[in-house]
Amino acid sequence: MIRLTPSRKTITGLAMAALTVSVPAHADTLVDNIQGITVGEDGKVERFTALWIDDDGRIKQVLKRQDELPRDTDFRFDGKGRYVIPGLIDSHLHVMGLGFGALTLDLSETSSLQEAQAAIAQYAAENPANRWIIGRGWNQEKWGLNRFPTAAELDAVVGDKPVWLERVDGHAGWANSKAMQLAGVDKTAKSPAGGKIIRDSAGNPTGVFVDNASALVQSSVPKPRPEDRDLALSKAQNILLSFGITAAADMGTSIEDWQSFRRAGDGGWLNIRIMSYAAGTEAMELIGGPGPSPWLYQDKLRLNGVKLYLDGALGSRGAWLKQPYQDDPANTGLPLQTGAQLRNLMSRAALDEFQLAIHAIGDAANSEVLQAIDELADTYEGDRRWRIEHAQIVDPADIAAFSKHGIIASMQPVHQTSDREMAEARLDPARLEGAYAWRSLLGAGSRLAFGSDAPVESPDPFAGLAAAMSRTGADGQPFGGWRVKEAVSREQALAGFTSDGAFAGFADGRFGKLVAGQHADFLFIDRDILLSSPADIRQTKVLATWVGGREVFAAGQ
Amino acid sequence: MIRLTPSRKTITGLAMAALTVSVPAHADTLVDNIQGITVGEDGKVERFTALWIDDDGRIKQVLKRQDELPRDTDFRFDGKGRYVIPGLIDSHLHVMGLGFGALTLDLSETSSLQEAQAAIAQYAAENPANRWIIGRGWNQEKWGLNRFPTAAELDAVVGDKPVWLERVDGHAGWANSKAMQLAGVDKTAKSPAGGKIIRDSAGNPTGVFVDNASALVQSSVPKPRPEDRDLALSKAQNILLSFGITAAADMGTSIEDWQSFRRAGDGGWLNIRIMSYAAGTEAMELIGGPGPSPWLYQDKLRLNGVKLYLDGALGSRGAWLKQPYQDDPANTGLPLQTGAQLRNLMSRAALDEFQLAIHAIGDAANSEVLQAIDELADTYEGDRRWRIEHAQIVDPADIAAFSKHGIIASMQPVHQTSDREMAEARLDPARLEGAYAWRSLLGAGSRLAFGSDAPVESPDPFAGLAAAMSRTGADGQPFGGWRVKEAVSREQALAGFTSDGAFAGFADGRFGKLVAGQHADFLFIDRDILLSSPADIRQTKVLATWVGGREVFAAGQ
Repeated sequence: MIRLTPSRKTITGLAMAALTVSVPAHADTLVDNIQGITVGEDGKVERFTALWIDDDGRIKQVLKRQDELPRDTDFRFDGKGRYVIPGLIDSHLHVMGLGFGALTLDLSETSSLQEAQAAIAQYAAENPANRWIIGRGWNQEKWGLNRFPTAAELDAVVGDKPVWLERVDGHAGWANSKAMQLAGVDKTAKSPAGGKIIRDSAGNPTGVFVDNASALVQSSVPKPRPEDRDLALSKAQNILLSFGITAAADMGTSIEDWQSFRRAGDGGWLNIRIMSYAAGTEAMELIGGPGPSPWLYQDKLRLNGVKLYLDGALGSRGAWLKQPYQDDPANTGLPLQTGAQLRNLMSRAALDEFQLAIHAIGDAANSEVLQAIDELADTYEGDRRWRIEHAQIVDPADIAAFSKHGIIASMQPVHQTSDREMAEARLDPARLEGAYAWRSLLGAGSRLAFGSDAPVESPDPFAGLAAAMSRTGADGQPFGGWRVKEAVSREQALAGFTSDGAFAGFADGRFGKLVAGQHADFLFIDRDILLSSPADIRQTKVLATWVGGREVFAAGQ
Repeated sequence: MIRLTPSRKTITGLAMAALTVSVPAHADTLVDNIQGITVGEDGKVERFTALWIDDDGRIKQVLKRQDELPRDTDFRFDGKGRYVIPGLIDSHLHVMGLGFGALTLDLSETSSLQEAQAAIAQYAAENPANRWIIGRGWNQEKWGLNRFPTAAELDAVVGDKPVWLERVDGHAGWANSKAMQLAGVDKTAKSPAGGKIIRDSAGNPTGVFVDNASALVQSSVPKPRPEDRDLALSKAQNILLSFGITAAADMGTSIEDWQSFRRAGDGGWLNIRIMSYAAGTEAMELIGGPGPSPWLYQDKLRLNGVKLYLDGALGSRGAWLKQPYQDDPANTGLPLQTGAQLRNLMSRAALDEFQLAIHAIGDAANSEVLQAIDELADTYEGDRRWRIEHAQIVDPADIAAFSKHGIIASMQPVHQTSDREMAEARLDPARLEGAYAWRSLLGAGSRLAFGSDAPVESPDPFAGLAAAMSRTGADGQPFGGWRVKEAVSREQALAGFTSDGAFAGFADGRFGKLVAGQHADFLFIDRDILLSSPADIRQTKVLATWVGGREVFAAGQ
């Protein structure tokens, strides 16, 4: 393969080349009077009292209690005794999905039709630039309505622009008259197979469209414009920084997403670090070209590789299992592609040094991916950092295979606490032995990269840290933790959300640890997470977030 | 419309903000002992003897004979008395087309089948990474063959990979057996309408496919890979720099082209400045998002706007004329879209501040675009710099309309010298009054941005300068110049390839003039173009090309 490295021989002589060397400015900052915690070079937790930051935003020195403070720094920032930890890394989320979700009207907390109408009217007034009012979360049962709401009830609050609201379960949509008019839906419209148009006694659509009938209106909702995308990115970034996430792996980047990331970088407003995994090999080639992109914008953005899917999810019984679902004995789920197709896509990416991040939830899917990696690893040598995304249900017999090629298990601790009852329904106890098996995977030599899968779950990493070390949900259930032998230590949980997340994204040495030479990405928080219980850790408030030696979020501002 | 400008309030205090200010390095360069020519701030040609360049590649001072040389510069470059002119700007070309064309096998100079076979074998040996051997320019008549060549004659020199060669006129293609096999073309293939498969007496395809039959093989030629695109960009850049082109308007940038430009910028090997015009509004939105991109990579790349087409070309009688073609009395050519469609696309772009560059060759097309601009100019106020690309045949009655909104005529002087006999066949003398009417357009208050339309013509700007001031071709014909009243002055020609090209691309103040504060883009050449005849100017050799204060091309290296 041709790697293009145009020669620099066109620079005449050493003297001209010297012109391109920039002279460093000698402005540095000391952040002192802090109670710092980090995972040191040896993987052990260490405490420190000050950070000395160079003018390029990198750490010059991590100072401990006994170290002498530098005398001649240009700036000094008083930490006022607050707690400091490394910026946290989310190794699996969907940046634009998080942003778009947050920009959408959420009706899930409304308890009456009138309350929902008021929320819709307020949202429309606050978002005058929106061409459509889009929302979700309504539930007429919760409202005590005993019937579906109507288009007329929406028209009463928003009549001048289309409104389209998805029911809480995603199985119905509610349109106003303007939306139905734009979609060309009237009395003559026919319900499609697997869907139903709710009608009044005269046969006119009332405004609610069930299941496949939703597409009749949904298909008219315009695609987001570039400015909508930029707004969603900005929103997602602000949410993540407010939770203390300073770097994230974006799983399934489209070319449109990537262009938005680049606009943020070009425009100087990209404050979070994004490790990008393209949505399939076509997007990968279009975004990355002949290989992964370089690190851009002072290590704020890189296309690392590609996200592929081998199966679906456990909840919808789309996860591919070796044996049938306990609660659906004729069904084993199914692979989304054949083994040959998977291997072809993996080869296509690996040939050009793209990193592979493969979604596998069921034990059959994990087995197949492990097998495929084992077959390809001989051909595609070197530091590949093969990733399995989710790795939720692994046949205990397959756990050892994670060690063979240093395969990274990219897992989301909160999925365990959210899904445990559903998992117990889907799987018998023998298979639950390999469910969310964090400690077993670590023990087998795998590396855990923790994340949230936001917006599927909240991106709050303190909830993730608490779940990782306790196997207990926000409600304190189950007491003592679910299959608590798979919990990880406090240090392992922190590494999963910091240094090991950086390693999983080829960012080790750049960020993820508070050590000299790495970017100064850190958080001021309101408690000592080494001394707090998991339940207390879950309550942690982020006071301020710094990325590259700059404060990019502060609570209450 | 929302313009996203994320607030910077997250930076705490003035002290932290001060950290982002970089301290300038004090390394500068004096290029002296030169005979310099430039178009000064007042549009007049000026001479100078030295350039003082700052460490960021911008001009600190243009020194004249009487000026005192600075004493304390860090570096000094001896120009050895050579001539220096500003870097030249090509306002209309196709960067990737130029690069791909140059990477393709050219058989147009071969005078026998044997010579062609040798060239094909050599090219295949020199380009082992090519999956297909692609070429053009063969002519069996010139070879004295009196028959089409055969697949077997190609197999004899390249049998292991597919070969596909276009005839000189583009009306036939010649394949080897491997190419036919990959395309699935055999005895059973049928000639499509408007095409013919040449067959032997047994009915087997012999390897030549005429007109529409070419698609049978052409459709199997693989799309270029990203590394192919990067190679083409590198090739185009080297060609342009060797001709003294330091900046170019790319007319019809695709997202794939743009990604290649960005890889060059990110990788530090983008040496030419590219002003990009997207290939249609979809590419425009994908590349630019909510508006033109910022200037990137120290003013090396910007998406300015969009290229649209209103008609075709004069040669193929696709240009849209007010009256029928003189040599085809039933034909006026035709518009490629309706006036309403054109205005919709123009509005779509202008709404988001994208610049419009509209291809119009025939007098009816120019009239329509002038009318559309006049209608839209009230709505889309401000500094729009509407561009008409080619503006070849303008009704003399319409020439004055170019002045009304400061419309830029983006014209290619060499098209005039190449096309004059064809134009005389297509048009009667009355209409030739408005053909390639450079001086009339200037006189009407339009600004001329000159270019080459490479790879349609050679990108050599000295051929363009010579044609612009003489209306005479490389062969010296016609003596005294064709409709020479439309020739422009030496100063106007130089401005069309420098400062006015920069203005047409919103780059004025950045490059295009050798004045303090602009990038130091300049050429060392082998003659004084102020004292040379047009025929002599055409022979100018570029000795070295500097962009941003760095030598990026030197002859003979």
